[in-house]
Amino acid sequence: MGEDFIQTVLFQLFVIIVLVEVARMLCNKVKVPTVIGEILVGVLIANTFLYDFINLGSDREVFEVLKELGVIFLLFSVGLETPFSAIRKVGKTAMFVAVFGVILPFIVGYLLMIGALGPEKQLEALFVGASMVATSVGITARVIRDMNLMHTVESRVIIGAAVIDDILGMIVLAIVVGIAGGGSLDIFQVAVVAIEAVLFVLAIIFIGSLVLPKVLKKRDDRKVTQVCTAERRPKGISPLPLALIVCFALSSISSFLGLAAIIGAFLAGMAFAEFKDRWPCEEKMEPIVEFLTPFFFVFVGIAVDLEAFGELGVLMMAATITVFAIITKFIGCGLGARSLGGKSAAIVGVGMVPRGEVGLIVASIGLGMLDPETGLSIIEPGLYNAIVFMSLVTTLVAPPLLTYTFQRKLGKKCEVLPPDVN
Amino acid sequence: MGEDFIQTVLFQLFVIIVLVEVARMLCNKVKVPTVIGEILVGVLIANTFLYDFINLGSDREVFEVLKELGVIFLLFSVGLETPFSAIRKVGKTAMFVAVFGVILPFIVGYLLMIGALGPEKQLEALFVGASMVATSVGITARVIRDMNLMHTVESRVIIGAAVIDDILGMIVLAIVVGIAGGGSLDIFQVAVVAIEAVLFVLAIIFIGSLVLPKVLKKRDDRKVTQVCTAERRPKGISPLPLALIVCFALSSISSFLGLAAIIGAFLAGMAFAEFKDRWPCEEKMEPIVEFLTPFFFVFVGIAVDLEAFGELGVLMMAATITVFAIITKFIGCGLGARSLGGKSAAIVGVGMVPRGEVGLIVASIGLGMLDPETGLSIIEPGLYNAIVFMSLVTTLVAPPLLTYTFQRKLGKKCEVLPPDVN
Repeated sequence: MGEDFIQTVLFQLFVIIVLVEVARMLCNKVKVPTVIGEILVGVLIANTFLYDFINLGSDREVFEVLKELGVIFLLFSVGLETPFSAIRKVGKTAMFVAVFGVILPFIVGYLLMIGALGPEKQLEALFVGASMVATSVGITARVIRDMNLMHTVESRVIIGAAVIDDILGMIVLAIVVGIAGGGSLDIFQVAVVAIEAVLFVLAIIFIGSLVLPKVLKKRDDRKVTQVCTAERRPKGISPLPLALIVCFALSSISSFLGLAAIIGAFLAGMAFAEFKDRWPCEEKMEPIVEFLTPFFFVFVGIAVDLEAFGELGVLMMAATITVFAIITKFIGCGLGARSLGGKSAAIVGVGMVPRGEVGLIVASIGLGMLDPETGLSIIEPGLYNAIVFMSLVTTLVAPPLLTYTFQRKLGKKCEVLPPDVN
Repeated sequence: MGEDFIQTVLFQLFVIIVLVEVARMLCNKVKVPTVIGEILVGVLIANTFLYDFINLGSDREVFEVLKELGVIFLLFSVGLETPFSAIRKVGKTAMFVAVFGVILPFIVGYLLMIGALGPEKQLEALFVGASMVATSVGITARVIRDMNLMHTVESRVIIGAAVIDDILGMIVLAIVVGIAGGGSLDIFQVAVVAIEAVLFVLAIIFIGSLVLPKVLKKRDDRKVTQVCTAERRPKGISPLPLALIVCFALSSISSFLGLAAIIGAFLAGMAFAEFKDRWPCEEKMEPIVEFLTPFFFVFVGIAVDLEAFGELGVLMMAATITVFAIITKFIGCGLGARSLGGKSAAIVGVGMVPRGEVGLIVASIGLGMLDPETGLSIIEPGLYNAIVFMSLVTTLVAPPLLTYTFQRKLGKKCEVLPPDVN
């Protein structure tokens, strides 16, 4: 029994990893972000004989955990590239870009769904709005780095805004998950959840990014001035275990508070970013992320039912959501960056378009939560498919548009390589 | 539901990792191998309120997988430090040490159990014999490295013998698992399993360590002489995904053949050891091992029922198995190394004593397999506890004995730091 179960899981892992690797190599060949390949592997498995071949019907719990660990470590590593100090440095412009780029897609997404599904579908509309909010900081940063344009003003604004945007997206997600957990749209409850979410985020930022670094620095200074035995200081805990402990602790707390676990993971990463010298955990974290994260994207794809796109309604909805996701982000962020001039604002607007992982995370949380009134998933499968479609297209569309707008501004040929979240 | 389940698992992971880290720091303080701390964490959880507190009764499947992944990656990384070439270099002595050190404990362990439990307990006796066979190459190597004595003849013999011993242990384990799977002690079946195991091991060694390196070298040479475009050669697959694919592939095959999955993982690591320059995956593998391996040892400990030691029988059995495990390994290996002279033979004998992970792996496989005739676990819980006790004590006893024997030989003070499998 035990050995059979393990045998099945090992075989499933083998097949999935091989397919992911093949998909990655193909993506690199056609210069497409590898995350798209990973999602398509999931779609392939779900919609062909492969699903039964690797016996995925049973034992989904194991992959639920691998998937969740994958996304938790991914968000931790995104947080790790997002020190609080980096947010302070990027000035007003980035803040405007982020705020407009969050408000416009959220409101338009929400209204779009209310218009399409009727005013009783509040939770569904909120989730779609939330899934249209967050720019994928991983994909954006990777595209710009691959273009060797990290030094431009536009790039700095995009990265800064993407960072703030990520935090705002987390807060929006926290609010939406909190409301959905309560089951109804009670203004008092919204306020409680919002305050809880904001307080949690601010508390972690305050403690992790402001208080702790100062306290530790002071302690170190005192030690050095006292006896100058910096080398003799006991080594203490090593970076990886500490990172794992903090990451799981904040994910758990965040989850117990009714917020999404990944919010805690992101904050844990952000707090750790302040301690890179003391506990350098990036290199050690990276292989774990590389091993586990594909499971998230593959299982995002496995939830996609291709037959659903046969329905005209789903196809229309996917197209509509995608178009509005691109337009609202472009206009919102462009407006926020208008002080930089038209061509630069266009670059910033385009650079903020890719939704990637965060939209998918929101959608899959919505798919996993049940509406307490109807007992069905908050995001019904057809709508889920539409959101995944939107994530795929916004991610695919951004790199060529970025190249084009940068060329228009800089007037030279700048090549863009495919981004890659890992 | 989904979120609740994830919430529980995250909290369990958090508690386990914190306890493991505390245990590790305590172990380092009292200079004891950290693996012992990890096992004791499991014993602590299983025998206190903690078990119910973190709700471990439910969802054991997830931890079954984490545990299995932990031990698979551990054996892969042990294999990675065991290139086939290293085995060839260590001459006859290491081979004698390994062979005597395998045969004596196996036979004595087997006879001991037949004597104690009666001749009908063939499977149980075989498993106990097998669990007394394999020296923990990880622990031994770590102890010697920490003593800075890698250059001595004795050390080289110990490492070489530990490596061969590991392979012999794997073959013994494969045979025993195969016999247990069949359910009876049929000589024809033993032969089939033994041949299957030996052929599988030899085939992987032959292909992975002899044929592939030559083929790849030839291909590279041809490329260089043709157009001298070594740099332009496409990068191809990166080391970590390749390592994961090969590791899961060989584990699966090994498991499908009825051998233990870890045998495949060990062979995969050994094959990879030949390609360290081409696909350096050690650094990337290490954090994954560090993250997952403790789950194996913790869950080894969780299976220990302290109340069982209340029974005089179990306590006696634990003491007997432990004493014979130490004596048989010491005498067997000492005999194998007698050509080096008495003092050196004593060092080698002592150095091969620690059983560590491999004995535990054998015992936990035995605990997980059911006897087809009685329907009970092949290794019943009392006996399992005795084997875990043996692993703990042999691991604890080796470092001080190694220090003592090395001092007797070299006549100088050589400090031994606690070994650490990770």
